[in-house]
Amino acid sequence: MLDLATRVHNHNFKIDPIIRSLLDTDFYKLLMAQTIFRRHRDTRVTFGIQNRSRSLRLADVVDMGELREQLDHARSVGLSRGESTWLRGNTFYGRRQMFSAEFMEWLEGFRLPDYELEVRDGQYVLTFHGPWLETTMWEVPALAILNELRARGVLRALSKFELQVLYARGMTRVWEKIERLKRLPELSIADFGTRRRHGYLWQDWCVEAMRAGLGEAFLGTSNCLIAMRREVEAVGTNAHELPMVYSALAEDDAALARAPYAVLADWQQDYAGNLLVMLPDTYGTTGFLKNAPDWLSAWTGIRIDSKEPIAGGDEAIAWWLRRGSDPREKLAIFSDGLDIDDIERIHGHFHGRLRIGYGWGTLLTNDFRGLVAEGRLDPISIVCKVIEAEGRPAVKISDNPSKAIGPEAEVARYSRVFGVGVQEALPVVV
Amino acid sequence: MLDLATRVHNHNFKIDPIIRSLLDTDFYKLLMAQTIFRRHRDTRVTFGIQNRSRSLRLADVVDMGELREQLDHARSVGLSRGESTWLRGNTFYGRRQMFSAEFMEWLEGFRLPDYELEVRDGQYVLTFHGPWLETTMWEVPALAILNELRARGVLRALSKFELQVLYARGMTRVWEKIERLKRLPELSIADFGTRRRHGYLWQDWCVEAMRAGLGEAFLGTSNCLIAMRREVEAVGTNAHELPMVYSALAEDDAALARAPYAVLADWQQDYAGNLLVMLPDTYGTTGFLKNAPDWLSAWTGIRIDSKEPIAGGDEAIAWWLRRGSDPREKLAIFSDGLDIDDIERIHGHFHGRLRIGYGWGTLLTNDFRGLVAEGRLDPISIVCKVIEAEGRPAVKISDNPSKAIGPEAEVARYSRVFGVGVQEALPVVV
Repeated sequence: MLDLATRVHNHNFKIDPIIRSLLDTDFYKLLMAQTIFRRHRDTRVTFGIQNRSRSLRLADVVDMGELREQLDHARSVGLSRGESTWLRGNTFYGRRQMFSAEFMEWLEGFRLPDYELEVRDGQYVLTFHGPWLETTMWEVPALAILNELRARGVLRALSKFELQVLYARGMTRVWEKIERLKRLPELSIADFGTRRRHGYLWQDWCVEAMRAGLGEAFLGTSNCLIAMRREVEAVGTNAHELPMVYSALAEDDAALARAPYAVLADWQQDYAGNLLVMLPDTYGTTGFLKNAPDWLSAWTGIRIDSKEPIAGGDEAIAWWLRRGSDPREKLAIFSDGLDIDDIERIHGHFHGRLRIGYGWGTLLTNDFRGLVAEGRLDPISIVCKVIEAEGRPAVKISDNPSKAIGPEAEVARYSRVFGVGVQEALPVVV
Repeated sequence: MLDLATRVHNHNFKIDPIIRSLLDTDFYKLLMAQTIFRRHRDTRVTFGIQNRSRSLRLADVVDMGELREQLDHARSVGLSRGESTWLRGNTFYGRRQMFSAEFMEWLEGFRLPDYELEVRDGQYVLTFHGPWLETTMWEVPALAILNELRARGVLRALSKFELQVLYARGMTRVWEKIERLKRLPELSIADFGTRRRHGYLWQDWCVEAMRAGLGEAFLGTSNCLIAMRREVEAVGTNAHELPMVYSALAEDDAALARAPYAVLADWQQDYAGNLLVMLPDTYGTTGFLKNAPDWLSAWTGIRIDSKEPIAGGDEAIAWWLRRGSDPREKLAIFSDGLDIDDIERIHGHFHGRLRIGYGWGTLLTNDFRGLVAEGRLDPISIVCKVIEAEGRPAVKISDNPSKAIGPEAEVARYSRVFGVGVQEALPVVV
């Protein structure tokens, strides 16, 4: 029977919004925001979008009017009462009241700040200026909007029937990956796929698939809204923006060398337990571990992000052993462009030698590779990164020179200060 | 928004009927019914269900109460006004008014006759006694009901999510077959999958997929209801029941030897053109062709059913050549348990040497093989065949002894009369 009300309601839609909730973001943005709220409320930081897949001229396939509509809509969204209640009342990582009353009050009044948008060489130059606490909140929604608008543009050309086959194939693909995951002993895996997802509903489906297929081996999702609605764990810790801003603010080379550790000293005052996972690669993992203070070896774990994962994990094991820790009690989280083959390979190498966690992103929530002609739905490598802090350029080097960010002279200075040696460039797929 | 009316309406469902229309049957049943109506209105014929997949105890997996409900519901269904209009007004095989006014009047008043149902050795013994014109109409709905009830029983144990993945996989599988079909030159293929389908909605989806994927290469469907609703061609010609009944009624061996040709003599008075497709295998193809009257070589084509398809097609080519016909102007319809591999193989062998048509049945509309544990959704080989006519046993020999039907002594007599030589048994999958 026809539901006339629904039909008419749909006709009245002005846009079909991509971001419908402030919680449609990654959990670690809230954790980092609270740290920024406590310690750096007045710091001004600029974020900007960078499409590393230069061959795709994003401005040719995403309409600027639609992009503005979606960004503007996201700016209109505030925390609902139920969402606030969930953040205040829920247990995260085994802890109640993870977010302070002061931070919650701020968040309840928060709206995403203004943006600057222009087109250069077929790419969108989308920039966010303002207090770090505000601009940081754009990262995930801005990326999700760009990725979903691009997908919608491709899907618009497909018939209802082609769409059905496309999603049948997408679902089959995800489920076949999950069936392979089921065979891995002591698996612990989470969805990290918000920012580069195909779309919100698809990410939501992937989370349901992971839960149905993996049960307890599925740890949860980084997406707060899905975590709330589906009653799964919200997961995540911290990202490169913290050491990048702390480093940009350092007054001299000595302060710069201390900056990445100062981040973690602050972090461990704010959080504990499984949230104490260091991200060592911002200026090269090897130098970071060599110069790390002793107290860091007491941390729960490490995130292996830009380094080749087997090499990165082996390096962490060797470091823990040198520092007198038992790696089997330590957690290594792998999260860099993983697909099922990588996960199997990593698990085969490290299972029994480390506690392992996987943060599975783009190739969980956006793997339609080859399902539309000319790869027009293949995921792209697009990021939203800190560009400057208080007028000083931000720098990221990582373990993979393909991912380096910042002016050349500053990259050289950071390389010198952090003792970054020769690095091998790895291809960046997503 | 919730459509309360739909919800409440669904609550009020007594059963979810499998057969909702008298047209939910194969087109050739209507063609044969009209011939029976004209020539054999008073002949009494018994049909019965036979599950050739003995290892599946159908009565253990299909509830008898539900089976009775569905059979009784099918008996309550009559031709609607719109359906009658479609049959009267439509063009079938290029011809208007395929069905006479007298036949249509009969069909408009027709309801499926009574049935007898009991369980023996874990199998349903489902039998239809009465006028041939009435009992013949049970074949397709009875089989569709049994197959769909079996599938529903399996599906009942699956969660909503598992169902979604199951259908995603099923769709992907059908679509991958269609993509292989697309590559075959001058393809002409039709859906023959009503009787052993997974379910009505699934068959409907498969027809849509075939049309979307193949365009003009998709000839149509044997299912009248889907043909009407989707506005595609209704296709089919005739089946073994005609020679089986004509033969059972033969008074002596000489009449028996003439019976299969008498069927076709009647048929060509009733129909023409692409409906003149002989089915030569009821008592062995080789003998049938050897003894065929000359006028049969003028027929449009042949259906290769129980014989190994390459051998069957080669035999038909040789026969046409002997009779002075050009095989390239003749039509061979392949329809026996085909899957995509068979179709590719047949096409590779015969393309350019014959006009080829494929009647694709069970492995189009019911291929969920391996998608549920223990093959519980794998299709079964179940048929509804003539058992006797006017109290005399009906016999089928075919080219595959695994498919023989009838009392041993009668099979021996038929084999002698029709000169059936040594045959090789082929496995019957569906």
